[in-house]
Amino acid sequence: MGHDRIYNFSAGPSMLPEKVLERAASELLNYNGTGCSVMEMSHRSPEYDAIIVSVESKLRRVMNIPDNYSVLFVQGGATMQFSMAAMNLMGKTGKADYAITGEFSKKAADEAAKYGTVNIAASSKDKNFSYIPRQSDLKLDPEASYFHYCMNNTIFGSKWDYIPETPAPLVCDMSSCILSEPVDVSKFGIIYAGAQKNMGPAGFAVVIIRNDLDLCPPDNTPVLLNYKTMIKNKSMYNTPPTYGIYMLGLVLDWIDELGGLERMAEINREKAALLYDRLDRSKLFRLGVEKPFRSIMNVTFSTGDEELDNQFVKGAEKEGLVSLKGHRSVGGMRASIYNAMPREGVEKLISYIDKFESERL
Amino acid sequence: MGHDRIYNFSAGPSMLPEKVLERAASELLNYNGTGCSVMEMSHRSPEYDAIIVSVESKLRRVMNIPDNYSVLFVQGGATMQFSMAAMNLMGKTGKADYAITGEFSKKAADEAAKYGTVNIAASSKDKNFSYIPRQSDLKLDPEASYFHYCMNNTIFGSKWDYIPETPAPLVCDMSSCILSEPVDVSKFGIIYAGAQKNMGPAGFAVVIIRNDLDLCPPDNTPVLLNYKTMIKNKSMYNTPPTYGIYMLGLVLDWIDELGGLERMAEINREKAALLYDRLDRSKLFRLGVEKPFRSIMNVTFSTGDEELDNQFVKGAEKEGLVSLKGHRSVGGMRASIYNAMPREGVEKLISYIDKFESERL
Repeated sequence: MGHDRIYNFSAGPSMLPEKVLERAASELLNYNGTGCSVMEMSHRSPEYDAIIVSVESKLRRVMNIPDNYSVLFVQGGATMQFSMAAMNLMGKTGKADYAITGEFSKKAADEAAKYGTVNIAASSKDKNFSYIPRQSDLKLDPEASYFHYCMNNTIFGSKWDYIPETPAPLVCDMSSCILSEPVDVSKFGIIYAGAQKNMGPAGFAVVIIRNDLDLCPPDNTPVLLNYKTMIKNKSMYNTPPTYGIYMLGLVLDWIDELGGLERMAEINREKAALLYDRLDRSKLFRLGVEKPFRSIMNVTFSTGDEELDNQFVKGAEKEGLVSLKGHRSVGGMRASIYNAMPREGVEKLISYIDKFESERL
Repeated sequence: MGHDRIYNFSAGPSMLPEKVLERAASELLNYNGTGCSVMEMSHRSPEYDAIIVSVESKLRRVMNIPDNYSVLFVQGGATMQFSMAAMNLMGKTGKADYAITGEFSKKAADEAAKYGTVNIAASSKDKNFSYIPRQSDLKLDPEASYFHYCMNNTIFGSKWDYIPETPAPLVCDMSSCILSEPVDVSKFGIIYAGAQKNMGPAGFAVVIIRNDLDLCPPDNTPVLLNYKTMIKNKSMYNTPPTYGIYMLGLVLDWIDELGGLERMAEINREKAALLYDRLDRSKLFRLGVEKPFRSIMNVTFSTGDEELDNQFVKGAEKEGLVSLKGHRSVGGMRASIYNAMPREGVEKLISYIDKFESERL
């Protein structure tokens, strides 16, 4: 990488492709000959309209989103969707299923309990979230309005290795795995994702919502938390986070140039395999998640010795490998290797692991 | 201006100071030697913590915010505050006063009606929002939990020329006038403002809230819409709009370098006076707002002839003076001359008015 840039393994906000940042910098004062920055454009101007329309259409193409889905750009990140999904969907029966496979799915369930009865359909808390419950273990409420789960658990580094089959529509938090590989959108009622991992800067979420869902928000739903209002106004009821949406467009162009999500997935799986293989061979480090459920975005590992873990993290920083400290609730290390983490970053991390291990074994 | 930039009179998102954009561009790939973009930084990193802490402290200094107020950075813009303020404050008595002096104050009142009884304490709708009601005309509900108004009405170009005196705490939408001149924060219970006019890119709002307000949100308040949660977590319950907050810091540095809000106000008043004086002298154009209530941020005017107005707007574009079309609900022209609009932009607009008028009279 150029510009004296570091390899940043942060869980989010996280690395953006260098090419995307270079293009953003070059367009910052004058976008496409308009004489102004995207940040300065009225969201109602023809220039900005062209941007938001093209970002939506790029996302539809890259993710292969069927026509019977709406695409929304909303503020508040995934956390706002914890509230918004429940407010809009719970009312159908007053009940919903939630699978708890990490900290954010737990938060989503807690938030949903404000709006109805939450049935915990499954939980992997018994083994510190080191696995994903099997389809046959899901205890579904036949009256559930929807089934909510988080596909990739950022903090624990696990990922659902199957899409659950449920009579109720699936509502899926894909914050930390969206755009990392192809996904069959048609299996979902709602997909949502905070932007700050694989899509762009923090400050918005993308919501992909099937148009035939039963939306029944209570009367006191805040206007911006009503999916119908957002769908009807094409995310423009009020000023959307215009610059973040533009940045998503640049990221989508970059994915396109690489060869789309099929190629993106290959690259991601290769990067993850390199790192997991090295850690599996290690006599010093242990991995946090059982093999079938390992995330290709967030790799969690530790020595089992807090002091040694700290040495690892500090030594890594000196090599330009930063933000490797695990989440405070888990400890150890976490290497978030999202789309924008170059393969060289992973290779450099592995070299550092080699060095660290050889000095201590 | 350099970079082939235009003068953009958009009501928001709107111009940013060229120096701010230049600095943002120069730091986009590598902020302050960290080796990464502010967009890529974990919001929990020491580097980002230093940014958000310094932005808050700059805002406190520039606006002279007393210590018994909290400063919040929240998503959803001013529209989310229409909901959030009502959800948090209405519960005290179930009633609130709203003054209607434009379209956004009307929207705020409509939203608040979801949460309690809204008393319209005053409205200037009778004269198409061309004036501001007097203190003596305010019909206050003695049981109101708060009094809400919008200080500067972006669409109509009017501004409250006094701060109302009410027994209930003042809740004020300052979206289109914050940072344009000094304001006595201690007179307010809550000040909120969407960022995309005088503060930075779209995608967040600043909330300045007195710590002793009675906050009583209902149990089903979405977690991000609870002021207590945001205060307790210092705007970091979830990932905040990190880049927008950083941009606000650059804007505050720019205001500081100019000489703070006293100097900013002088510059703004001079710019507005130049334009109003020219329009007052015009035989072709008429102004939309009575003299004492004219906004120094949004100047509305028209010829009274839609076709002629269109010619004006189109001709202006050719001179690099863009987004002069008035809001669709008002028609005519609107020149938004926020902090970042250079005096030269106003002078160029006046020259164009001279030319346009001389060709037609």
